[in-house]
Amino acid sequence: MGIGNIFQVFQPKDKIFFVLFEKVTENLVAMSNDFNQGLQDFDLNDDSMLKKMSDYEHKNDEITHEIFVELGKNFITPFDREDIHELASGLDDIADYIYSSAKYIYLYKSPQQKAYTEFSLLIQKACVEIQHAFQNMKGFKNMKQVKEACIKINSIENIADDLLSNSMAELFETHDAINIIKVSSVLNYLEIVTDKAEDVANAIENILIKYA
Amino acid sequence: MGIGNIFQVFQPKDKIFFVLFEKVTENLVAMSNDFNQGLQDFDLNDDSMLKKMSDYEHKNDEITHEIFVELGKNFITPFDREDIHELASGLDDIADYIYSSAKYIYLYKSPQQKAYTEFSLLIQKACVEIQHAFQNMKGFKNMKQVKEACIKINSIENIADDLLSNSMAELFETHDAINIIKVSSVLNYLEIVTDKAEDVANAIENILIKYA
Amino acid sequence: MGIGNIFQVFQPKDKIFFVLFEKVTENLVAMSNDFNQGLQDFDLNDDSMLKKMSDYEHKNDEITHEIFVELGKNFITPFDREDIHELASGLDDIADYIYSSAKYIYLYKSPQQKAYTEFSLLIQKACVEIQHAFQNMKGFKNMKQVKEACIKINSIENIADDLLSNSMAELFETHDAINIIKVSSVLNYLEIVTDKAEDVANAIENILIKYA
Repeated sequence: MGIGNIFQVFQPKDKIFFVLFEKVTENLVAMSNDFNQGLQDFDLNDDSMLKKMSDYEHKNDEITHEIFVELGKNFITPFDREDIHELASGLDDIADYIYSSAKYIYLYKSPQQKAYTEFSLLIQKACVEIQHAFQNMKGFKNMKQVKEACIKINSIENIADDLLSNSMAELFETHDAINIIKVSSVLNYLEIVTDKAEDVANAIENILIKYA
Repeated sequence: MGIGNIFQVFQPKDKIFFVLFEKVTENLVAMSNDFNQGLQDFDLNDDSMLKKMSDYEHKNDEITHEIFVELGKNFITPFDREDIHELASGLDDIADYIYSSAKYIYLYKSPQQKAYTEFSLLIQKACVEIQHAFQNMKGFKNMKQVKEACIKINSIENIADDLLSNSMAELFETHDAINIIKVSSVLNYLEIVTDKAEDVANAIENILIKYA
Repeated sequence: MGIGNIFQVFQPKDKIFFVLFEKVTENLVAMSNDFNQGLQDFDLNDDSMLKKMSDYEHKNDEITHEIFVELGKNFITPFDREDIHELASGLDDIADYIYSSAKYIYLYKSPQQKAYTEFSLLIQKACVEIQHAFQNMKGFKNMKQVKEACIKINSIENIADDLLSNSMAELFETHDAINIIKVSSVLNYLEIVTDKAEDVANAIENILIKYA
């Protein structure tokens, strides 16, 4: 038995959830980085960014499934089973909507909009804050940092709200109805990503209220 | 006292919820069958399909109300009261959005789209799987079948996602902005039905996690 | 120590939540009154209504924050902590979507639509019923009145549903794609307000089921 295995034997059973959430949030941070980078260097004829997003989305699905399997096996969980379910589903929604945003950007062949990269930067920041929140939840030690991350995510969502309305106002100046329908649809998917990040932050705050 | 009454006296109190959920899911299966049939033989001048959908929707409301009344009367429930509330609300949402889809198809006089019937077939399959899941939940005996039904509903939702994006791409090829707004609105309602079916599947999986 | 302070000392700790919910619902009633009035006397060149909506929205945020702070401090709550969190979030959503509706009405410079004021009247009625529900929840004494208020909110949401579809049918008669996109977007925000009111009513009914 190697050192790694010994460690695993003595590891409290409920740590597995923190390990899995760390994997999910790491995946989301990498996904949002590549999404943002892909939009900055956008090339409609090169769909490698879309393929990457699809891969990240599948990986997220797999880890989410692992979390649900562990929920079925473990009696001891760091917090209520429903809360773990809600967190995992919320993180999965974030990956789903980043992927949907990418899909419709390619599908509608909508030209690279400044607003798209502005949104992807906000999404990247939100994913980094979500990672911070989960890193600091381990052992319920750094609750202040968790709370600060949640506040930042809420403020990112407010900025995204304003970005959406300002982008829509600019978009209508094109007076091109079909283009307006396409771009507004992508902008709405992008804005939902930040809504889903806020949902995760709210679920975390709900857990803090119960256990703090 | 007739045999029916004797049976009811000895029936465990919590069976009433399975009986009512069986009624709801039976209603949903019939509704989705008639919706699919109605779209296949679509005739804008004959609104009997829309009237049927309205009737099914009202019937669903009534059984949902019965479930809530029973929740208020019964101390013993087969699973948490909140879970029963969530399941009943989720099933009610499915009926609501099928009805809304039908309503906007007639309202917008949007020509019969191939995508509409493709969606209605997916919706019908999802409703049949929901019925399977509830039939197998009785007594918590056939948990494997319940889980399989939930997996199928999730996979139907994925297919519906792709159907939506492919249909949107085709729709934009018409270059008719007003038609695009109308049809995309109906497609979105149809896609929400499969989202709501997935929500019910997730609520069921959540219950499995708690009780399995 | 003044009489006010003595009173506060002897006041059961959990009354603070009813006091705070009374503040939120009072704010929502005033907000919906001014929204309705502002739409009746609508003047695109005078954005004082929009500023008022922004102020009400901020005030709602502050009281919601107070509720969350109290949740963190109080061991004793009148009902489950998660339920208080859900109610506070639901009421916050109502204020958010009224503000969003106002914002997009000004942003899109969309002419005053009859449907807008019809919606704002429904929203005002829903907010009054929400206030009634909370006033009657104190001490769990007037449960019948709470239930009646919830039923009225549900029926307002049904009326709003029909208002939306009728307004959309009229809107398409303008045959002006860009105008249709703008107005339908505002109508959707307005309809979401009544959906959020229904969510609050459902959360209240859920609490009644647990405690009645």
